[in-house]
Amino acid sequence: MVLAVVLLSGGLDSSTALAIASEKGYDVVALTFNYGQRHMRELESARRIAEHYNVKSHVEIFLGIGQHLQSSLTRSELELPSDGEHTDGTSGIPTTYVPGRNMVFLSVASAIAEGIGADAVVIAANAVDFSGYPDCTPEFIEGFQRLLEVGTKRGVEGPPVRVEAPLLRMSKEDIVREALRLEVPLELTWSCYSGGERACGTCDSCRLRLRGFAEAETHDPIAYEGRDEA
Amino acid sequence: MVLAVVLLSGGLDSSTALAIASEKGYDVVALTFNYGQRHMRELESARRIAEHYNVKSHVEIFLGIGQHLQSSLTRSELELPSDGEHTDGTSGIPTTYVPGRNMVFLSVASAIAEGIGADAVVIAANAVDFSGYPDCTPEFIEGFQRLLEVGTKRGVEGPPVRVEAPLLRMSKEDIVREALRLEVPLELTWSCYSGGERACGTCDSCRLRLRGFAEAETHDPIAYEGRDEA
Repeated sequence: MVLAVVLLSGGLDSSTALAIASEKGYDVVALTFNYGQRHMRELESARRIAEHYNVKSHVEIFLGIGQHLQSSLTRSELELPSDGEHTDGTSGIPTTYVPGRNMVFLSVASAIAEGIGADAVVIAANAVDFSGYPDCTPEFIEGFQRLLEVGTKRGVEGPPVRVEAPLLRMSKEDIVREALRLEVPLELTWSCYSGGERACGTCDSCRLRLRGFAEAETHDPIAYEGRDEA
Repeated sequence: MVLAVVLLSGGLDSSTALAIASEKGYDVVALTFNYGQRHMRELESARRIAEHYNVKSHVEIFLGIGQHLQSSLTRSELELPSDGEHTDGTSGIPTTYVPGRNMVFLSVASAIAEGIGADAVVIAANAVDFSGYPDCTPEFIEGFQRLLEVGTKRGVEGPPVRVEAPLLRMSKEDIVREALRLEVPLELTWSCYSGGERACGTCDSCRLRLRGFAEAETHDPIAYEGRDEA
Protein backbone atom coordinates (compact mmCIF):
# COMPACT_ATOMS: atom_id res chain seq x y z
CA MET A 1 0.00 0.00 0.00
CA VAL A 2 1.38 3.36 -1.06
CA LEU A 3 0.99 6.07 1.58
CA ALA A 4 0.82 9.56 0.09
CA VAL A 5 0.47 13.10 1.40
CA VAL A 6 -1.83 14.90 -1.04
CA LEU A 7 -1.84 18.71 -1.11
CA LEU A 8 -5.53 19.60 -1.16
CA SER A 9 -6.67 23.20 -1.57
CA GLY A 10 -10.26 22.30 -2.31
CA GLY A 11 -10.11 23.42 -5.93
CA LEU A 12 -10.78 21.54 -9.16
CA ASP A 13 -7.15 20.55 -9.71
CA SER A 14 -6.20 19.29 -6.25
CA SER A 15 -9.52 17.46 -5.87
CA THR A 16 -8.84 15.70 -9.17
CA ALA A 17 -5.28 14.87 -8.06
CA LEU A 18 -6.74 13.34 -4.90
CA ALA A 19 -9.20 11.32 -6.98
CA ILE A 20 -6.31 10.04 -9.12
CA ALA A 21 -4.34 9.01 -6.00
CA SER A 22 -7.46 7.35 -4.66
CA GLU A 23 -8.04 5.44 -7.92
CA LYS A 24 -4.45 4.18 -7.75
CA GLY A 25 -5.31 2.73 -4.35
CA TYR A 26 -3.09 5.12 -2.38
CA ASP A 27 -3.71 5.54 1.30
CA VAL A 28 -4.13 9.33 1.52
CA VAL A 29 -3.22 11.91 4.12
CA ALA A 30 -4.73 15.14 2.80
CA LEU A 31 -2.90 18.36 3.68
CA THR A 32 -4.49 21.80 3.54
CA PHE A 33 -2.93 25.16 4.40
CA ASN A 34 -4.50 28.18 5.92
CA TYR A 35 -2.00 30.86 4.91
CA GLY A 36 -4.23 33.86 5.12
CA GLN A 37 -5.59 33.48 1.59
CA ARG A 38 -8.55 35.69 0.67
CA HIS A 39 -10.52 32.71 -0.39
CA MET A 40 -10.77 30.94 2.96
CA ARG A 41 -13.92 29.47 1.49
CA GLU A 42 -11.67 26.88 -0.18
CA LEU A 43 -10.79 25.44 3.25
CA GLU A 44 -14.40 24.36 3.69
CA SER A 45 -14.31 22.78 0.24
CA ALA A 46 -11.11 20.94 1.16
CA ARG A 47 -12.79 19.53 4.27
CA ARG A 48 -15.77 18.30 2.28
CA ILE A 49 -13.62 16.75 -0.44
CA ALA A 50 -11.42 14.99 2.15
CA GLU A 51 -14.54 13.66 3.80
CA HIS A 52 -15.98 12.51 0.47
CA TYR A 53 -12.85 10.49 -0.24
CA ASN A 54 -12.73 9.12 3.29
CA VAL A 55 -9.03 9.91 3.60
CA LYS A 56 -6.88 8.33 6.30
CA SER A 57 -6.51 11.78 7.85
CA HIS A 58 -6.90 15.42 6.90
CA VAL A 59 -4.24 17.71 8.32
CA GLU A 60 -4.92 21.44 8.33
CA ILE A 61 -1.93 23.62 9.02
CA PHE A 62 -1.84 27.28 9.87
CA LEU A 63 1.08 29.18 8.35
CA GLY A 64 1.26 32.75 9.58
CA ILE A 65 2.92 34.01 6.41
CA GLY A 66 0.14 35.68 4.43
CA GLN A 67 0.68 39.24 5.59
CA HIS A 68 4.40 38.96 4.86
CA LEU A 69 3.94 37.99 1.24
CA GLN A 70 3.50 40.45 -1.58
CA SER A 71 0.51 38.94 -3.34
CA SER A 72 -2.99 40.01 -4.25
CA LEU A 73 -4.12 36.57 -3.04
CA THR A 74 -3.16 37.36 0.54
CA ARG A 75 -3.33 41.15 0.69
CA SER A 76 -6.77 42.55 0.23
CA GLU A 77 -5.46 46.07 -0.55
CA LEU A 78 -4.13 44.73 -3.88
CA GLU A 79 -6.55 44.34 -6.75
CA LEU A 80 -7.26 40.87 -8.10
CA PRO A 81 -6.41 40.74 -11.79
CA SER A 82 -8.93 39.47 -14.32
CA ASP A 83 -9.18 38.99 -18.05
CA GLY A 84 -5.43 38.57 -18.37
CA GLU A 85 -4.76 41.99 -16.94
CA HIS A 86 -1.59 42.02 -14.86
CA THR A 87 -1.34 44.87 -12.45
CA ASP A 88 2.31 44.79 -11.48
CA GLY A 89 3.37 45.90 -14.92
CA THR A 90 6.71 44.08 -14.95
CA SER A 91 6.03 40.66 -16.41
CA GLY A 92 3.54 38.10 -17.58
CA ILE A 93 3.28 36.68 -14.07
CA PRO A 94 0.16 38.13 -12.40
CA THR A 95 -0.03 39.67 -8.93
CA THR A 96 -1.87 36.58 -7.69
CA TYR A 97 1.55 34.88 -7.74
CA VAL A 98 2.40 34.06 -4.13
CA PRO A 99 6.20 34.01 -3.91
CA GLY A 100 7.45 30.55 -3.02
CA ARG A 101 4.00 29.13 -2.32
CA ASN A 102 4.47 25.66 -3.77
CA MET A 103 8.03 25.60 -2.38
CA VAL A 104 6.67 26.20 1.11
CA PHE A 105 3.76 23.77 0.63
CA LEU A 106 5.94 21.00 -0.81
CA SER A 107 8.57 21.52 1.90
CA VAL A 108 6.01 21.08 4.66
CA ALA A 109 4.31 18.18 2.84
CA SER A 110 7.64 16.41 2.34
CA ALA A 111 8.63 17.01 5.96
CA ILE A 112 5.38 15.43 7.15
CA ALA A 113 5.70 12.62 4.59
CA GLU A 114 9.19 11.81 5.83
CA GLY A 115 8.00 11.90 9.42
CA ILE A 116 5.13 9.46 8.87
CA GLY A 117 7.06 7.24 6.47
CA ALA A 118 4.93 8.11 3.44
CA ASP A 119 6.12 7.13 -0.02
CA ALA A 120 5.02 10.17 -1.93
CA VAL A 121 3.67 13.69 -1.93
CA VAL A 122 1.10 14.59 -4.58
CA ILE A 123 0.75 18.13 -5.87
CA ALA A 124 -1.74 19.34 -8.48
CA ALA A 125 0.73 21.70 -10.17
CA ASN A 126 -0.20 22.28 -13.78
CA ALA A 127 1.94 23.93 -16.42
CA VAL A 128 -0.43 24.03 -19.40
CA ASP A 129 -3.54 26.13 -18.70
CA PHE A 130 -2.08 28.06 -15.81
CA SER A 131 -1.19 31.57 -14.76
CA GLY A 132 2.52 31.26 -15.53
CA TYR A 133 3.54 30.73 -11.91
CA PRO A 134 7.16 29.49 -12.00
CA ASP A 135 6.52 27.06 -9.15
CA CYS A 136 4.09 25.03 -11.29
CA THR A 137 6.59 23.94 -13.94
CA PRO A 138 8.36 20.62 -14.61
CA GLU A 139 11.68 22.37 -13.86
CA PHE A 140 10.46 23.31 -10.39
CA ILE A 141 9.07 19.85 -9.63
CA GLU A 142 12.32 18.19 -10.79
CA GLY A 143 14.42 20.69 -8.83
CA PHE A 144 12.42 20.00 -5.71
CA GLN A 145 12.84 16.25 -6.15
CA ARG A 146 16.61 16.74 -6.39
CA LEU A 147 16.54 18.84 -3.22
CA LEU A 148 14.85 15.97 -1.37
CA GLU A 149 17.63 13.66 -2.57
CA VAL A 150 20.41 15.73 -1.02
CA GLY A 151 18.68 17.54 1.81
CA THR A 152 16.68 14.93 3.73
CA LYS A 153 17.56 11.89 5.80
CA ARG A 154 15.38 9.70 3.57
CA GLY A 155 17.15 11.04 0.49
CA VAL A 156 20.71 10.55 1.72
CA GLU A 157 19.97 7.06 3.04
CA GLY A 158 17.91 5.78 0.10
CA PRO A 159 15.10 6.84 -2.21
CA PRO A 160 13.64 10.17 -1.05
CA VAL A 161 9.96 10.94 -0.74
CA ARG A 162 8.68 10.89 -4.35
CA VAL A 163 7.06 14.02 -5.73
CA GLU A 164 4.10 13.23 -7.99
CA ALA A 165 2.43 15.89 -10.11
CA PRO A 166 -0.17 13.94 -12.08
CA LEU A 167 -1.73 17.01 -13.73
CA LEU A 168 1.53 18.66 -14.74
CA ARG A 169 1.12 18.28 -18.48
CA MET A 170 -2.69 18.15 -18.74
CA SER A 171 -4.79 20.93 -20.25
CA LYS A 172 -7.69 22.30 -18.19
CA GLU A 173 -10.02 20.49 -20.57
CA ASP A 174 -8.16 17.22 -19.84
CA ILE A 175 -8.46 17.89 -16.11
CA VAL A 176 -12.22 18.47 -16.32
CA ARG A 177 -12.64 15.30 -18.39
CA GLU A 178 -10.53 13.34 -15.91
CA ALA A 179 -12.57 14.75 -13.02
CA LEU A 180 -15.78 13.66 -14.73
CA ARG A 181 -14.42 10.17 -15.43
CA LEU A 182 -13.41 9.83 -11.78
CA GLU A 183 -16.73 11.25 -10.57
CA VAL A 184 -15.08 14.00 -8.55
CA PRO A 185 -17.84 15.82 -6.63
CA LEU A 186 -17.25 19.03 -8.57
CA GLU A 187 -20.11 20.81 -6.82
CA LEU A 188 -18.02 20.72 -3.63
CA THR A 189 -14.91 22.30 -5.16
CA TRP A 190 -13.94 25.96 -5.02
CA SER A 191 -11.48 27.64 -7.35
CA CYS A 192 -12.38 31.34 -7.19
CA TYR A 193 -9.78 33.71 -5.74
CA SER A 194 -12.34 36.05 -4.19
CA GLY A 195 -14.02 35.22 -0.97
CA GLY A 196 -17.65 35.63 -2.00
CA GLU A 197 -20.64 33.34 -1.58
CA ARG A 198 -20.63 32.58 -5.29
CA ALA A 199 -17.61 32.32 -7.57
CA CYS A 200 -16.90 35.66 -9.27
CA GLY A 201 -16.48 34.21 -12.75
CA THR A 202 -13.95 36.87 -13.70
CA CYS A 203 -10.72 36.22 -11.76
CA ASP A 204 -7.96 34.29 -13.54
CA SER A 205 -8.78 31.11 -11.65
CA CYS A 206 -12.50 31.26 -12.52
CA ARG A 207 -11.72 32.03 -16.14
CA LEU A 208 -9.34 29.08 -16.46
CA ARG A 209 -11.88 26.81 -14.82
CA LEU A 210 -14.81 27.99 -16.95
CA ARG A 211 -12.75 27.62 -20.12
CA GLY A 212 -11.91 24.04 -19.10
CA PHE A 213 -15.57 23.18 -18.63
CA ALA A 214 -16.50 24.86 -21.92
CA GLU A 215 -13.80 23.00 -23.82
CA ALA A 216 -14.87 19.73 -22.22
CA GLU A 217 -18.38 20.63 -23.36
CA THR A 218 -19.89 20.21 -19.94
CA HIS A 219 -21.54 22.31 -17.28
CA ASP A 220 -19.76 23.61 -14.16
CA PRO A 221 -22.10 22.75 -11.26
CA ILE A 222 -20.99 25.55 -8.92
CA ALA A 223 -22.80 28.89 -8.66
CA TYR A 224 -21.36 31.99 -10.32
CA GLU A 225 -22.19 35.63 -9.72
CA GLY A 226 -24.77 36.95 -12.16
CA ARG A 227 -25.53 33.60 -13.77
CA ASP A 228 -28.65 31.55 -13.35
CA GLU A 229 -28.21 28.07 -11.99
CA ALA A 230 -28.57 25.41 -14.67
CA MET B 1 22.58 48.77 0.52
CA VAL B 2 22.03 45.02 0.62
CA LEU B 3 18.73 43.97 2.17
CA ALA B 4 18.84 40.49 3.72
CA VAL B 5 16.42 38.21 5.52
CA VAL B 6 18.43 36.52 8.29
CA LEU B 7 17.11 33.31 9.86
CA LEU B 8 17.53 33.89 13.58
CA SER B 9 16.82 31.12 16.08
CA GLY B 10 18.51 32.89 18.97
CA GLY B 11 21.39 30.41 19.20
CA LEU B 12 25.14 30.90 18.93
CA ASP B 13 25.30 30.17 15.22
CA SER B 14 22.43 32.29 13.94
CA SER B 15 23.39 35.20 16.21
CA THR B 16 26.91 35.06 14.77
CA ALA B 17 25.51 34.92 11.23
CA LEU B 18 23.46 38.03 12.02
CA ALA B 19 26.58 39.76 13.36
CA ILE B 20 28.43 38.90 10.14
CA ALA B 21 25.59 40.33 8.03
CA SER B 22 25.56 43.40 10.23
CA GLU B 23 29.35 43.88 9.87
CA LYS B 24 28.96 43.68 6.09
CA GLY B 25 26.56 46.61 6.35
CA TYR B 26 23.47 44.63 5.39
CA ASP B 27 20.07 46.00 6.24
CA VAL B 28 18.59 43.08 8.17
CA VAL B 29 15.09 41.66 8.49
CA ALA B 30 15.41 38.96 11.16
CA LEU B 31 13.08 35.98 10.81
CA THR B 32 12.25 33.61 13.68
CA PHE B 33 9.96 30.59 13.64
CA ASN B 34 7.77 29.25 16.36
CA TYR B 35 7.23 25.69 15.15
CA GLY B 36 6.38 24.09 18.45
CA GLN B 37 10.00 23.42 19.41
CA ARG B 38 10.60 22.27 22.99
CA HIS B 39 13.04 25.05 23.53
CA MET B 40 10.68 28.00 23.12
CA ARG B 41 13.15 29.78 25.34
CA GLU B 42 15.19 30.45 22.19
CA LEU B 43 12.40 32.72 20.89
CA GLU B 44 13.10 35.14 23.75
CA SER B 45 16.81 35.00 22.92
CA ALA B 46 16.02 35.75 19.29
CA ARG B 47 14.02 38.82 20.34
CA ARG B 48 16.87 40.13 22.47
CA ILE B 49 19.49 39.52 19.80
CA ALA B 50 17.35 41.24 17.16
CA GLU B 51 16.91 44.19 19.51
CA HIS B 52 20.67 44.30 20.25
CA TYR B 53 21.42 44.55 16.55
CA ASN B 54 18.69 47.10 15.98
CA VAL B 55 17.41 45.23 12.94
CA LYS B 56 15.11 46.88 10.41
CA SER B 57 12.38 44.49 11.53
CA HIS B 58 11.99 41.20 13.35
CA VAL B 59 9.36 38.91 11.91
CA GLU B 60 8.11 36.04 14.06
CA ILE B 61 6.11 33.41 12.25
CA PHE B 62 3.99 30.67 13.68
CA LEU B 63 4.11 27.40 11.77
CA GLY B 64 1.66 24.86 13.11
CA ILE B 65 3.76 21.90 12.01
CA GLY B 66 5.51 20.69 15.17
CA GLN B 67 3.04 18.00 16.19
CA HIS B 68 3.09 16.59 12.65
CA LEU B 69 6.85 16.07 12.56
CA GLN B 70 8.59 13.02 13.88
CA SER B 71 11.33 14.65 15.93
CA SER B 72 12.45 14.63 19.54
CA LEU B 73 12.81 18.42 19.19
CA THR B 74 9.09 18.90 18.76
CA ARG B 75 7.59 15.86 20.46
CA SER B 76 8.15 15.74 24.16
CA GLU B 77 7.31 12.03 24.38
CA LEU B 78 10.57 11.28 22.53
CA GLU B 79 13.81 11.32 24.50
CA LEU B 80 16.46 13.91 23.67
CA PRO B 81 19.72 12.18 22.75
CA SER B 82 22.97 13.12 24.45
CA ASP B 83 26.60 12.08 24.36
CA GLY B 84 26.29 10.91 20.76
CA GLU B 85 23.61 8.39 21.60
CA HIS B 86 21.09 8.10 18.80
CA THR B 87 17.81 6.62 19.82
CA ASP B 88 16.24 5.77 16.49
CA GLY B 89 18.77 3.02 15.86
CA THR B 90 18.81 3.33 12.07
CA SER B 91 21.53 5.82 11.24
CA GLY B 92 24.02 8.38 12.44
CA ILE B 93 21.40 11.12 12.19
CA PRO B 94 19.96 11.73 15.67
CA THR B 95 16.27 11.94 16.59
CA THR B 96 16.62 15.69 17.02
CA TYR B 97 16.64 15.85 13.22
CA VAL B 98 13.48 17.70 12.21
CA PRO B 99 12.56 16.46 8.71
CA GLY B 100 12.77 19.25 6.19
CA ARG B 101 13.30 21.99 8.77
CA ASN B 102 15.81 24.11 6.87
CA MET B 103 13.89 23.45 3.67
CA VAL B 104 10.73 24.88 5.24
CA PHE B 105 12.63 27.76 6.88
CA LEU B 106 14.52 28.69 3.72
CA SER B 107 11.35 28.41 1.62
CA VAL B 108 9.49 30.84 3.85
CA ALA B 109 12.53 33.15 4.16
CA SER B 110 12.98 33.21 0.37
CA ALA B 111 9.28 33.84 -0.16
CA ILE B 112 9.39 36.81 2.18
CA ALA B 113 12.69 38.00 0.66
CA GLU B 114 11.17 37.93 -2.81
CA GLY B 115 8.09 39.76 -1.56
CA ILE B 116 10.04 42.63 0.01
CA GLY B 117 12.67 42.78 -2.73
CA ALA B 118 15.53 41.59 -0.53
CA ASP B 119 18.82 40.57 -2.11
CA ALA B 120 19.66 37.63 0.09
CA VAL B 121 18.63 35.19 2.76
CA VAL B 122 21.21 34.28 5.38
CA ILE B 123 21.17 30.91 7.13
CA ALA B 124 23.58 29.73 9.82
CA ALA B 125 23.80 26.18 8.49
CA ASN B 126 27.07 24.55 9.47
CA ALA B 127 28.46 21.29 8.11
CA VAL B 128 31.59 20.85 10.25
CA ASP B 129 30.79 20.52 13.95
CA PHE B 130 27.16 19.54 13.52
CA SER B 131 24.77 16.71 14.15
CA GLY B 132 24.89 15.32 10.63
CA TYR B 133 21.59 16.87 9.58
CA PRO B 134 21.41 16.57 5.76
CA ASP B 135 19.82 20.00 5.45
CA CYS B 136 22.97 21.71 6.75
CA THR B 137 25.30 20.63 3.95
CA PRO B 138 26.78 22.49 0.95
CA GLU B 139 24.83 20.11 -1.33
CA PHE B 140 21.56 21.20 0.27
CA ILE B 141 22.38 24.91 0.13
CA GLU B 142 23.42 24.64 -3.53
CA GLY B 143 20.32 22.58 -4.35
CA PHE B 144 18.11 25.18 -2.74
CA GLN B 145 19.79 27.98 -4.69
CA ARG B 146 19.10 26.09 -7.92
CA LEU B 147 15.47 25.66 -6.90
CA LEU B 148 15.14 29.44 -6.49
CA GLU B 149 16.55 29.87 -10.00
CA VAL B 150 13.85 27.75 -11.65
CA GLY B 151 10.94 28.05 -9.23
CA THR B 152 10.53 31.73 -8.43
CA LYS B 153 9.57 34.80 -10.41
CA ARG B 154 12.82 36.51 -9.39
CA GLY B 155 14.79 33.48 -10.55
CA VAL B 156 13.18 33.10 -13.95
CA GLU B 157 13.38 36.85 -14.67
CA GLY B 158 16.92 37.45 -13.42
CA PRO B 159 19.19 36.64 -10.48
CA PRO B 160 17.20 34.87 -7.76
CA VAL B 161 17.35 35.68 -4.07
CA ARG B 162 20.91 34.71 -3.03
CA VAL B 163 21.33 32.11 -0.29
CA GLU B 164 24.25 32.93 2.00
CA ALA B 165 25.54 30.45 4.57
CA PRO B 166 28.54 32.21 6.07
CA LEU B 167 29.23 29.53 8.71
CA LEU B 168 28.92 26.56 6.36
CA ARG B 169 32.56 25.48 6.49
CA MET B 170 33.57 26.88 9.90
CA SER B 171 34.32 24.69 12.90
CA LYS B 172 32.49 25.44 16.16
CA GLU B 173 35.78 26.85 17.49
CA ASP B 174 35.95 29.18 14.48
CA ILE B 175 32.35 30.27 15.12
CA VAL B 176 33.06 31.06 18.79
CA ARG B 177 36.18 33.02 17.81
CA GLU B 178 34.21 34.91 15.15
CA ALA B 179 31.46 35.65 17.68
CA LEU B 180 34.05 37.03 20.12
CA ARG B 181 35.70 39.15 17.42
CA LEU B 182 32.30 40.58 16.47
CA GLU B 183 31.32 41.08 20.11
CA VAL B 184 28.15 39.03 19.79
CA PRO B 185 26.26 39.28 23.10
CA LEU B 186 26.75 35.59 23.83
CA GLU B 187 25.06 35.86 27.19
CA LEU B 188 21.77 36.49 25.35
CA THR B 189 22.00 33.41 23.12
CA TRP B 190 20.37 30.05 23.77
CA SER B 191 21.40 26.78 22.12
CA CYS B 192 20.08 24.08 24.47
CA TYR B 193 17.41 21.77 23.10
CA SER B 194 15.61 21.36 26.44
CA GLY B 195 13.29 23.98 27.73
CA GLY B 196 14.80 24.55 31.18
CA GLU B 197 15.83 27.74 32.98
CA ARG B 198 19.49 26.85 32.55
CA ALA B 199 21.07 25.02 29.63
CA CYS B 200 21.26 21.27 30.30
CA GLY B 201 24.89 20.91 29.23
CA THR B 202 24.30 17.38 27.98
CA CYS B 203 22.15 17.52 24.82
CA ASP B 204 23.95 17.41 21.48
CA SER B 205 23.54 21.15 20.97
CA CYS B 206 25.00 22.02 24.41
CA ARG B 207 27.86 19.60 23.90
CA LEU B 208 28.78 21.07 20.52
CA ARG B 209 28.59 24.57 21.95
CA LEU B 210 30.67 23.78 25.04
CA ARG B 211 33.29 22.04 22.93
CA GLY B 212 33.50 25.14 20.72
CA PHE B 213 34.09 27.38 23.70
CA ALA B 214 36.66 24.97 25.16
CA GLU B 215 38.55 24.76 21.87
CA ALA B 216 38.47 28.54 21.55
CA GLU B 217 39.86 28.61 25.12
CA THR B 218 37.19 30.91 26.40
CA HIS B 219 34.31 30.83 28.83
CA ASP B 220 30.67 30.39 27.84
CA PRO B 221 28.78 33.14 29.69
CA ILE B 222 25.41 31.36 29.89
CA ALA B 223 24.31 29.33 32.94
CA TYR B 224 24.40 25.52 32.83
CA GLU B 225 22.71 23.02 35.11
CA GLY B 226 24.95 21.89 37.93
CA ARG B 227 27.77 24.29 37.18
CA ASP B 228 28.71 27.32 39.20
CA GLU B 229 28.67 30.63 37.41
CA ALA B 230 32.17 31.89 36.61
